Amino acid sequence: MKRRDFARSLAAAAAAAMPGARLGATAPRRAPSVNGARLNGWMTAIGEFGKNPQGGVTRLAYSEADLAARAYTVQLMRDARLEVSVDAAGNIYGKRAGTDPIAKPLIFGSHVDSVPEGGNYDGNVGTLAAIEVARTFAEQGVSTRHPLWVACWQNEEGGTWGSHLVTTEPTTAELATVARSGKSISDGIRYIGGDPARLASARLRKGDAHGYLELHIEQGGNLDRDKLDIGVVEGIVGLREWDVTIMGVANHAGTTPMAERHDAMLAAARFTEMVNRVATSEPGRQVGTVGRIQAFPGAPNVVPGKVVCTLELRDLDDAKIQRLYDVIVAESHKIGARNGTTFDYHEFVTHESALCDERVRSLIGASARTLGFTTMSLPSGAGHDAQNLARVCPMGMIFIPSVGGISHAPREFSRPQDITNGANVLLGAVLAMDATMFA
Amino acid sequence: MKRRDFARSLAAAAAAAMPGARLGATAPRRAPSVNGARLNGWMTAIGEFGKNPQGGVTRLAYSEADLAARAYTVQLMRDARLEVSVDAAGNIYGKRAGTDPIAKPLIFGSHVDSVPEGGNYDGNVGTLAAIEVARTFAEQGVSTRHPLWVACWQNEEGGTWGSHLVTTEPTTAELATVARSGKSISDGIRYIGGDPARLASARLRKGDAHGYLELHIEQGGNLDRDKLDIGVVEGIVGLREWDVTIMGVANHAGTTPMAERHDAMLAAARFTEMVNRVATSEPGRQVGTVGRIQAFPGAPNVVPGKVVCTLELRDLDDAKIQRLYDVIVAESHKIGARNGTTFDYHEFVTHESALCDERVRSLIGASARTLGFTTMSLPSGAGHDAQNLARVCPMGMIFIPSVGGISHAPREFSRPQDITNGANVLLGAVLAMDATMFA
Repeated sequence: MKRRDFARSLAAAAAAAMPGARLGATAPRRAPSVNGARLNGWMTAIGEFGKNPQGGVTRLAYSEADLAARAYTVQLMRDARLEVSVDAAGNIYGKRAGTDPIAKPLIFGSHVDSVPEGGNYDGNVGTLAAIEVARTFAEQGVSTRHPLWVACWQNEEGGTWGSHLVTTEPTTAELATVARSGKSISDGIRYIGGDPARLASARLRKGDAHGYLELHIEQGGNLDRDKLDIGVVEGIVGLREWDVTIMGVANHAGTTPMAERHDAMLAAARFTEMVNRVATSEPGRQVGTVGRIQAFPGAPNVVPGKVVCTLELRDLDDAKIQRLYDVIVAESHKIGARNGTTFDYHEFVTHESALCDERVRSLIGASARTLGFTTMSLPSGAGHDAQNLARVCPMGMIFIPSVGGISHAPREFSRPQDITNGANVLLGAVLAMDATMFA
Repeated sequence: MKRRDFARSLAAAAAAAMPGARLGATAPRRAPSVNGARLNGWMTAIGEFGKNPQGGVTRLAYSEADLAARAYTVQLMRDARLEVSVDAAGNIYGKRAGTDPIAKPLIFGSHVDSVPEGGNYDGNVGTLAAIEVARTFAEQGVSTRHPLWVACWQNEEGGTWGSHLVTTEPTTAELATVARSGKSISDGIRYIGGDPARLASARLRKGDAHGYLELHIEQGGNLDRDKLDIGVVEGIVGLREWDVTIMGVANHAGTTPMAERHDAMLAAARFTEMVNRVATSEPGRQVGTVGRIQAFPGAPNVVPGKVVCTLELRDLDDAKIQRLYDVIVAESHKIGARNGTTFDYHEFVTHESALCDERVRSLIGASARTLGFTTMSLPSGAGHDAQNLARVCPMGMIFIPSVGGISHAPREFSRPQDITNGANVLLGAVLAMDATMFA
């Protein structure tokens, strides 16, 4: 596409972004379109790496399946005429030059690793769609002012490691963390071709990139339930996780009368119900979860003297998380006072919320509506590499529907048409961002 | 003691059992007395086998520590001029002849194995006191009409195995059960000198014994709290244990709104609190416990799709247990309906309650009061070998105080004076039972 065609497309996008403006599905499409059949073929092909017997994939970062999927990704990047490199953190970049020699790169992509017994859509959709966008540009002779970097971040599922390592200064303790594969982050980096001794060379600092875009499956059920095509992400929720230790007195379940028990399990039960009550006590999309629990000594015939469970709180507003946490702590002490148990909190995960750039959100919405898609603004309840990139450049995310809202499970599924739609919205957003000056 | 002295003692006991009758601690004692210093010396000595660094003992059945404690027990029996044998089930008997050649044996004793990181009083008090009673008889020339069998039952803590094997026909599946030591019951029996192929030779059938007595620490806090000397046990509570499986839908904790969750952990929490409510909803000593719990997949960031926990109910009245269980099941289905989860119950332990013989209870009470001890009637919330013996002969149990009601823990403790008191009450009850004809 020539530059003036693109400018016309942008004008249409801007028009669509005006309140009340809406283009039907039959509106003329001037932007180039991705090859949806090809993209979905790649989706099927990558699903072979770490395929589960019961469907979906187990493709833990730093495993053989991860290595195989990365090799396949590199091949697809090369086929898209991208210049492939692996940075010191083990992230794969497929780079394409821009027309402006001093312009910063516009980065877009996702990841290809998975959780244990996960699905083939989380990460893969965004990575392969990004390559498809680049290949479409190459085939259709589309040039951009900014260099384009298609990114495949390593070990997203273990805690957005690849994007974390390029946007912060990691500690040695972090690098010694043992990933699900059994390898430490350092060993994992070496395993996939990076070099933990040269991590500084991989760093992106504020201003080093023009912007970041990521297409992803929603993982929740909002788009699917409301039969909408595209989600324009408002931001990635903040997340905090605590180990909660409840101490009572272990005693013989047969000889200890109910009134004389200091039952840590009963206190944990009241805690779990209270967390649910507090999390649902006010409007909003905040969530509170008790996901792991263990009672000690853990025998059917012993009153538990100790319970350790987790508490997780998420919201787009970090202050709201703090407020809910304060209420939960106060309520838990009341619960403890009822039966002589104590509550102690140890925070072990803290991710601040990352808001999407307002201008990028507008571009994405315009790109979707230009193509005739219905949209919804929504937060991402899940963490993504985009939250790290938000620290260095304007960031935006595009969601496509997850059927039934199922993710991190073999039954995770997104329809081929939705994947194609998402890739086309990404393509439009990349071009719109390329044409935008962020002050 | 001569027979007529004993008859006088019995008359005193009977008088003491009359309503309103009470003998002070200074009342003349005509029954022989045990050597309390010797008995408490044995208690200290046996505490060396499997001694925990933090106090108490770990003397799992079929372990080396168990073997050593059994060897010590055999030696004490021999020193008490008992004829020692190990039956095919691995139980140790120290036998003493009676004066009546056709009288059935009067059995009394307990066990010497312990739970992991347990105390040195549970079981040992009853076993060593029984030997001390026999030694006192030997030293003081007391004869009895019935043969006396001092019993040391094997593997009480693993589920009253030794007494179970002599009172029922075990299944092959039971014998294949793996005990805490890692050995199967069969291998354990061989390890301690029994012969699983000849178990029939160890059987006691209804009428094979004159009666059974067991002295034990209370394990609960009733006697200690009310500063009473002796517990006259009403019976051993019935006990039923279930695995409760709660099925919901596992989902991403960040992307699944609170209202759309089918959170098995939340249902388990409501279940646990409901069990407590139901168990305390009517007067009585019934207890309900959730002692073990696991959430699946068990990650802080995943809404649990499945929880497995245990439910245990105990009461002296088996019908009450059934009634409470029926209420709990009905209530749990309501809990499941609230958030789209299901409850399924699998019963894996069933022990019917075992009532102590009314006449034996009277004898024990009389024996205690004759010696000037204060008494309380109470159920045993814990299981004991006595519950199995109750199937074949009149059974009674004597409790002494557990300081703070603590048991199955290193801090388990009973005062030396209480141990001596219990042994003297046992001695009196043995003589009284020997003189009693059970129709």
